[in-house]
Amino acid sequence: MYRTHTCGELRLSDAGKEVTLAGWVQRARKMGGMTFVDLRDRYGITQLVFNEEKDASLCEQANHLGREFVIQVKGIVSERSNKNKNIPTGEIEIVVDALTVLNTALTPPFTIEDNTDGGDDLRMKYRYLDLRRSVVRRNLELRHRMTMEVRRYLDSKGFLEIETPMLVGSTPEGARDFVVPSRMNPGQFYALPQSPQTLKQLLMVSGMDRYFQIVKCFRDEDLRADRQPEFTQIDCEMSFVTQEDIIETFEGMAKHLFKELRGVELTEPFLRMPWADAMKYYGSDKPDLRFGMKFVELMDILKGHGFSVFDNAAYIGGICAQGAAHYTRKQLDQLTEFVKRPQIGAKGMVYARVEADGNVKSSVDKFYTQDVLQQLKGAFDAQPGDLILILSGDDAMKTRKQLSELRLEMGNQLGLRDKNKFACLWVVDFPMFEWSDEEGRLMAMHHPFTHPKDEDIPLLDTDPAAVRADAYDMVVNGVEVGGGSIRIHDSQLQEKMFEILGFTPERAQEQFGFLMNAFKYGAPPHGGLAYGLDRWVSLFAGLDSIRDCIAFPKNNSGRDVMLDAPAALEQKQLDELCLAVMQKEK
Amino acid sequence: MYRTHTCGELRLSDAGKEVTLAGWVQRARKMGGMTFVDLRDRYGITQLVFNEEKDASLCEQANHLGREFVIQVKGIVSERSNKNKNIPTGEIEIVVDALTVLNTALTPPFTIEDNTDGGDDLRMKYRYLDLRRSVVRRNLELRHRMTMEVRRYLDSKGFLEIETPMLVGSTPEGARDFVVPSRMNPGQFYALPQSPQTLKQLLMVSGMDRYFQIVKCFRDEDLRADRQPEFTQIDCEMSFVTQEDIIETFEGMAKHLFKELRGVELTEPFLRMPWADAMKYYGSDKPDLRFGMKFVELMDILKGHGFSVFDNAAYIGGICAQGAAHYTRKQLDQLTEFVKRPQIGAKGMVYARVEADGNVKSSVDKFYTQDVLQQLKGAFDAQPGDLILILSGDDAMKTRKQLSELRLEMGNQLGLRDKNKFACLWVVDFPMFEWSDEEGRLMAMHHPFTHPKDEDIPLLDTDPAAVRADAYDMVVNGVEVGGGSIRIHDSQLQEKMFEILGFTPERAQEQFGFLMNAFKYGAPPHGGLAYGLDRWVSLFAGLDSIRDCIAFPKNNSGRDVMLDAPAALEQKQLDELCLAVMQKEK
Repeated sequence: MYRTHTCGELRLSDAGKEVTLAGWVQRARKMGGMTFVDLRDRYGITQLVFNEEKDASLCEQANHLGREFVIQVKGIVSERSNKNKNIPTGEIEIVVDALTVLNTALTPPFTIEDNTDGGDDLRMKYRYLDLRRSVVRRNLELRHRMTMEVRRYLDSKGFLEIETPMLVGSTPEGARDFVVPSRMNPGQFYALPQSPQTLKQLLMVSGMDRYFQIVKCFRDEDLRADRQPEFTQIDCEMSFVTQEDIIETFEGMAKHLFKELRGVELTEPFLRMPWADAMKYYGSDKPDLRFGMKFVELMDILKGHGFSVFDNAAYIGGICAQGAAHYTRKQLDQLTEFVKRPQIGAKGMVYARVEADGNVKSSVDKFYTQDVLQQLKGAFDAQPGDLILILSGDDAMKTRKQLSELRLEMGNQLGLRDKNKFACLWVVDFPMFEWSDEEGRLMAMHHPFTHPKDEDIPLLDTDPAAVRADAYDMVVNGVEVGGGSIRIHDSQLQEKMFEILGFTPERAQEQFGFLMNAFKYGAPPHGGLAYGLDRWVSLFAGLDSIRDCIAFPKNNSGRDVMLDAPAALEQKQLDELCLAVMQKEK
Repeated sequence: MYRTHTCGELRLSDAGKEVTLAGWVQRARKMGGMTFVDLRDRYGITQLVFNEEKDASLCEQANHLGREFVIQVKGIVSERSNKNKNIPTGEIEIVVDALTVLNTALTPPFTIEDNTDGGDDLRMKYRYLDLRRSVVRRNLELRHRMTMEVRRYLDSKGFLEIETPMLVGSTPEGARDFVVPSRMNPGQFYALPQSPQTLKQLLMVSGMDRYFQIVKCFRDEDLRADRQPEFTQIDCEMSFVTQEDIIETFEGMAKHLFKELRGVELTEPFLRMPWADAMKYYGSDKPDLRFGMKFVELMDILKGHGFSVFDNAAYIGGICAQGAAHYTRKQLDQLTEFVKRPQIGAKGMVYARVEADGNVKSSVDKFYTQDVLQQLKGAFDAQPGDLILILSGDDAMKTRKQLSELRLEMGNQLGLRDKNKFACLWVVDFPMFEWSDEEGRLMAMHHPFTHPKDEDIPLLDTDPAAVRADAYDMVVNGVEVGGGSIRIHDSQLQEKMFEILGFTPERAQEQFGFLMNAFKYGAPPHGGLAYGLDRWVSLFAGLDSIRDCIAFPKNNSGRDVMLDAPAALEQKQLDELCLAVMQKEK
């Protein structure tokens, strides 16, 4: 070892010891006849001191150390006269009597500090330097601790971690696959798994009983801010269970993680909200319940008073922002602009202030009497100082989603989305199908293996769109951190499901024959769940994006700018794979 | 839950309890007025009993249960009159009073027993049924326990598990990559990592200090019996360490695994053998030290006596098989055929028996006096009853490898390779380079990032082939279970290495610029090791192949016959990727 101790472990009780440290030069400063160097490693920072009077040539050497040089020093642990209470090693320093430069360093392109001067692109290109910053490193440390705790918990519950293959078959249903040409089978391709869904179901057929895996999954989608082409899933499946058993097991895991990693004890059972209620009251299947502003539907109160926008609406609904009546005209105009942005798409916004005297003053006063406005106030149980914001539209679901965006924005503006507060719930009773305008058919809302609620099975023949599923999502602070379902274990019901989803029997057999076949050999009732590891880590780390909890993330074009990947292949490689690259049509 | 207990947990002390079990019908048999069903799950087998007298219709139902039906039963735990001492639940049975068939099953294509009647191909196609066999399932349970213990050990030593990307850049140096076309970057490809080698080195540059990852790696090679296109590595790297520190850390891990998983306490330090000695004495860089038969070189004794085969040889060497003098002429002829097989390639074999009276009788007696033969006996310290086997050739290294095969074969024949005995060692001081006839240049024996021994660095300019590396392999029972090296952390030395390996500076920059660039910003001294997880599990499980410790392995053509992957893509998928499949040239 190049060291006897790390840069994070020496304390006043070690004073007098001769030690050897190694690490990076965080900074060096000359003060009178002394040179002070902050030496950094993963574990902390320790101050080194070089005394010109004691050893002029050693001190001279120290004066030539640049930022990020890698050095090794030998010296005596001594009490500091000028103690730094902010760091654990702040009471001591090392009086150095030998210095070795292990490696020099060019000046880094940005400062290695918590608040760096490096922009995103530069940080990504030099990610190995960005990772030296403790704010980034701490996310990876948290990620490590989280996976350790997940495994500890699941192992204690009898789960086996079983690796499923990365080179599987392509499934055109669902999102787009990344594919891998096979040299040994020319013209044929593997796919990288979007999730081990069918394989974990096969493991249940094989009697593994309780499976989990922390596993890379792949989706070739056009990337949004919070998506990565490869992401990590905590993937779980259990046999002989009902929805209740799964919720209990994984709520237990969530509580374990909150306790071990954030010191938060969640003693109450998580709220369970049917999907229909989540949409009705929050306009979202992943409501942020750190704050209220529950939707109130206002058709009864506001329709039929001559305000044509509302009179023609299929839905009128609003939220009450407590204490926001002080919002200025300018702020309200900005909110109106916010909901009118194309990504949200509302036509306009109506507001009403509850004034100090209890009177209500609205932007559509000419259509409504104070009497009606008082009914409005009553519907929200609004108090003096509150602000009511109302949207309407000709499609209830779309308008609810717009109102949801407005609610979240108000939550942000009013500081109600505290990153150190956690609101967890299960959204349950998802619809089995959703209509796709693009495909002109029903699509599986979760996936085609989801079990319908027993009591809704008769509706499969008469009104499939009304069928609810044994499916559930866990939502924390408005983020879907995981979800799953009870699966179909009956090959006939599975065949029927494929039929409703528009598969011909041949196509179903071709794509999922291995699974339906397996079900014929004794499949147990089973179900499971997948948690998004990246989402959990970013939630616990208080990050806005998953990118900073991933060691080497890709940018929005799916590129690794550090490695400069992807890149062109050599012709020899293409030839071996029997592939040719075609010109893209313009 | 569909059960109150598993099929492995009820004992005599539970007698009288009402329980619910669920599982698979292992077998059912009718005896007089009783029907006995063995109910199986992952945890064990419990006997169910149905009494015709008590409930004729229930018993009739039980009589119709087929093998592998999935059932749920309710009943009372009772003491068995006819106890089965071979299974933990053998003292009890469940007297059933309710039976639900959860799923029926077709008759499986092979028996779900430890000794199945299914051939390899059938077992792979129905792998989900094969995995129901406890001999296969136990391998996956062992694999789970091993990864848990690896993580526990490394976590306790301060290692962080950090995920590196699966979509990286292609590196034509080394083995062949699997590649992944990028739709968002048409004509460009990612590669799947052969190992996270360069990325873990970057993590050291970033100060992570101690990294590990249990990670899938990929190599597109023509498959041999014990290779898979995707395999799992326990990948580790440490900073500020010497070879000694790495060996100590990972020898500690090996001992931990032996103790926790096999109950074997290895208290002595593992033997360290220089690569040159391993080749000289065992003809292999992974000698199986469960038995002796160390090579003895015989040039001095056997050359120059008129036997032209030996007189013209560049190498003559032999082994002594203790107590094998009873080998018949036929057995010796078979050994000669064995070494003459094209895969081994020896020209012939000479043998000499030490007879009861101490005289030596050889197959080349006419060339050698008893005096010389006694010298031969003395060189091996051979005793009456021993058999000496001798090979010669005009290339010392090739002949040693032939002799190594003969040694292993004799070990097998004499029962010296006991799967429950473990001989561990480190092979150290590997050569830095090996000559490739195919490429007509020196190639890196480990990889181009390996650090030469400090004392051999001057030889890089004068005699690179003589340079030894700070590289080490761990070998157990003749299997290389892992290996690694101290890495170069100096960008100039790294550049020199690429030069010796025949890279132009431009090509080195193009392929490894990101790494050499990173080294300029303060790289610490570092090194590491990778263990093959599949190899470790198969070693501990006593398997001959890694295939049965993998849940869903591929066959020798790289196919998953269960999933029927790889397969052709739809034209739409190819178009999106701007790819065309070319006809393979015949």
